[in-house]
Amino acid sequence: MSYQHIQEAAYEANMQLPKLGLVLFTFGNVSAADRAAGVFAIKPSGVPYEELTPAKMVIVDFDGKTVEGNLRPSSDTLTHAVLYKHWENIGGIVHTHSTYATAWAQSQRDIPIYGTTHADHNTVDIPCAPPMDDVMIQGDYEYQTGFQIMNALKERNLSYEEIEMILVGNHAPFTWGKTPAKAVYNSAVLETVAKMALLTEQIRPDVPRLKDALIKKHFERKHGPNSYYGQ
Amino acid sequence: MSYQHIQEAAYEANMQLPKLGLVLFTFGNVSAADRAAGVFAIKPSGVPYEELTPAKMVIVDFDGKTVEGNLRPSSDTLTHAVLYKHWENIGGIVHTHSTYATAWAQSQRDIPIYGTTHADHNTVDIPCAPPMDDVMIQGDYEYQTGFQIMNALKERNLSYEEIEMILVGNHAPFTWGKTPAKAVYNSAVLETVAKMALLTEQIRPDVPRLKDALIKKHFERKHGPNSYYGQ
Amino acid sequence: MSYQHIQEAAYEANMQLPKLGLVLFTFGNVSAADRAAGVFAIKPSGVPYEELTPAKMVIVDFDGKTVEGNLRPSSDTLTHAVLYKHWENIGGIVHTHSTYATAWAQSQRDIPIYGTTHADHNTVDIPCAPPMDDVMIQGDYEYQTGFQIMNALKERNLSYEEIEMILVGNHAPFTWGKTPAKAVYNSAVLETVAKMALLTEQIRPDVPRLKDALIKKHFERKHGPNSYYGQ
Amino acid sequence: MSYQHIQEAAYEANMQLPKLGLVLFTFGNVSAADRAAGVFAIKPSGVPYEELTPAKMVIVDFDGKTVEGNLRPSSDTLTHAVLYKHWENIGGIVHTHSTYATAWAQSQRDIPIYGTTHADHNTVDIPCAPPMDDVMIQGDYEYQTGFQIMNALKERNLSYEEIEMILVGNHAPFTWGKTPAKAVYNSAVLETVAKMALLTEQIRPDVPRLKDALIKKHFERKHGPNSYYGQ
Repeated sequence: MSYQHIQEAAYEANMQLPKLGLVLFTFGNVSAADRAAGVFAIKPSGVPYEELTPAKMVIVDFDGKTVEGNLRPSSDTLTHAVLYKHWENIGGIVHTHSTYATAWAQSQRDIPIYGTTHADHNTVDIPCAPPMDDVMIQGDYEYQTGFQIMNALKERNLSYEEIEMILVGNHAPFTWGKTPAKAVYNSAVLETVAKMALLTEQIRPDVPRLKDALIKKHFERKHGPNSYYGQ
Repeated sequence: MSYQHIQEAAYEANMQLPKLGLVLFTFGNVSAADRAAGVFAIKPSGVPYEELTPAKMVIVDFDGKTVEGNLRPSSDTLTHAVLYKHWENIGGIVHTHSTYATAWAQSQRDIPIYGTTHADHNTVDIPCAPPMDDVMIQGDYEYQTGFQIMNALKERNLSYEEIEMILVGNHAPFTWGKTPAKAVYNSAVLETVAKMALLTEQIRPDVPRLKDALIKKHFERKHGPNSYYGQ
Repeated sequence: MSYQHIQEAAYEANMQLPKLGLVLFTFGNVSAADRAAGVFAIKPSGVPYEELTPAKMVIVDFDGKTVEGNLRPSSDTLTHAVLYKHWENIGGIVHTHSTYATAWAQSQRDIPIYGTTHADHNTVDIPCAPPMDDVMIQGDYEYQTGFQIMNALKERNLSYEEIEMILVGNHAPFTWGKTPAKAVYNSAVLETVAKMALLTEQIRPDVPRLKDALIKKHFERKHGPNSYYGQ
Repeated sequence: MSYQHIQEAAYEANMQLPKLGLVLFTFGNVSAADRAAGVFAIKPSGVPYEELTPAKMVIVDFDGKTVEGNLRPSSDTLTHAVLYKHWENIGGIVHTHSTYATAWAQSQRDIPIYGTTHADHNTVDIPCAPPMDDVMIQGDYEYQTGFQIMNALKERNLSYEEIEMILVGNHAPFTWGKTPAKAVYNSAVLETVAKMALLTEQIRPDVPRLKDALIKKHFERKHGPNSYYGQ
């Protein structure tokens, strides 16, 4: 069985991260899933972007076991595996330490919805999952990170299809989507929204959240059944 | 009838947006009007800048009806149409979500005039139109956005020839000018002025507005009947 | 008489401004003086950097009269002329609207000396000349700007050889030096020091100024009779 | 005896500084040690990066005496020499005035550990050594800077192997590592962590430090005996 298609998709998506200014050195990773085969291709751990090739992408199953590849997969592989296992409609996941999104994660605050750039992509504040309990951290940390993400959505009554991005408290963002390209797109959107939200609070500390009518309108322009954005 | 001249002008102007750092992905659009023909060329909706060509620019009339082109025009087309219809001396319009200008829009504050960089281009604070009423948002949103912009100028007794840029509250900036190139220039000026104004308030929270003599002098250097800037 | 040498020096120095990120569009100008000939070459007004050539640099005398060239010189030419006339050891002057230095100018604050990056170049706070009186603004504005700069140094008992940079309140920075290249270097240093000073105050609002022993040591490493920096 | 290997290593590492956005002009230097030979290669003082070649790197012994080379070594050479002399397992040292790290140094604050980007590299706050006593500044300043750095670690019970980066109060950062490439890597990490920490405090002024379980987990992922990051 050939995994070349997801290796190429993962490679292309990983190479977008430095181009979009979302990673320093190797501080990020993208995976691409083949749901029929029950596996995903993911960046090898600690390999500089300029040395990556499609063939170096490691093939891992949804329990986190390496299926093909000589390199060790990303240290965050188990988080990816958990999310693929539980969210059956996603085809790509991205993790970065992009500057502004990470600063919000470090502050352990949700990113409030302040404008239409945010509402074009999400109808809610971007959630920040709380840091894990010490027992979970000391245990199977990356595996538990996946559950921490899922629990944070559950507590807010959000599905992974309603919001495709999250902050992990004290850590950094994760994003996902139907394809790895969409997940990368979401990472860039998140970084921009994170920067705009900080600047907005600096310009006006008592700024209110966006009102419901605008949230609804902008999201539905792009995503509703009567959407009229794009071709 | 050929619309090639405005398609090329709109194409060239759209391609300036990523070069000037004013857009992420497809978060912006420029149009170029042929006033004699009563139409404008505008970016197709959601098409990445690297895939644009002059021929892909959609031709639309001042009521927002597509006259020529197979692609769907920008989702903001009706806002452009309204402004062309009511402002008879403009030849280009730009909409972006540039970071600093958008942060001011999200804060729903006018950008105060703090220095000569601002005064070289405008004699007044850069207006921020308030968010629309819910009824208008739920109705013909982009069409109403055009009126929201015109009303915000009217309330301040400003003509579209006195100021060529505005923020739409909770949304983002629009700029215009005699040509699409001038409208793009105005978008870059606005982003710079927006960044400088935020930094100025951070350096000195009680900073006063620029005094009238300097506002007058700098604007007239570039724009008055005795202007002496440029060739 | 040929002015080619100062035209080339002014051209080279002007072209450094966009490369160093110090100007947007045409918001800056550099001049290069031939003191023996009593003239300087300066950027023509409003001409984009990509269209500049050495031959387009306008030759002006120290009273501000054009000696050679078909283009109108920079609108700030009289400020340059006044400074060349009164400061006999300078060979180049730069004016920009670089973002952070301009924000300090708009705030009308001197930039406090907070660290050795500042002290490597200056032993004092970087002065901010106050905005001019209205009568001076309405009169020969650019000419008076030169005197406003000289007066601000005089009030602080500083010579133009002790400090090679200043902010003009509400406007933007001017820098100078023995050569136009040195004046451009000073503009880049000023922008960096301005950014660092703002960030320093954000990290610690009650931060004290640098102590005298460090000011003296760092300045003398680079500039004193026993300097030991460089070749 | 040939020093070509350390000259090339120092050259390559120095050339990374402008590429990583860590230096303006000549505001930084890297050295590479040959511990067996008891010497290091260091950037010549004040020479622009674009004019550097491996052969221009100056060879200096651990007492700061030039062993080979016609150019004057970096003015910070004695600081490098002291650290090589006392820390026998380091092979490279970097000094920059990178913007955010320098702003923290100017504020004389340690950089608090707020997230896993920090914890991936250090288990403690990044120390800021206090400014030196005036007598030390007036004496052999660069030599004393080395001791100031060592004393700051000693006071915190830290070894140079536990933390490979420091701020010198009012001045700027120094980093080190087993190789010059690792020391450069540390400089870029420090700049990113410094920027994230400032943004984090702006988003949430009362933000708490990272909790111990996460500090331990993330550091050990990359550095502990059971590390599982990289190949």
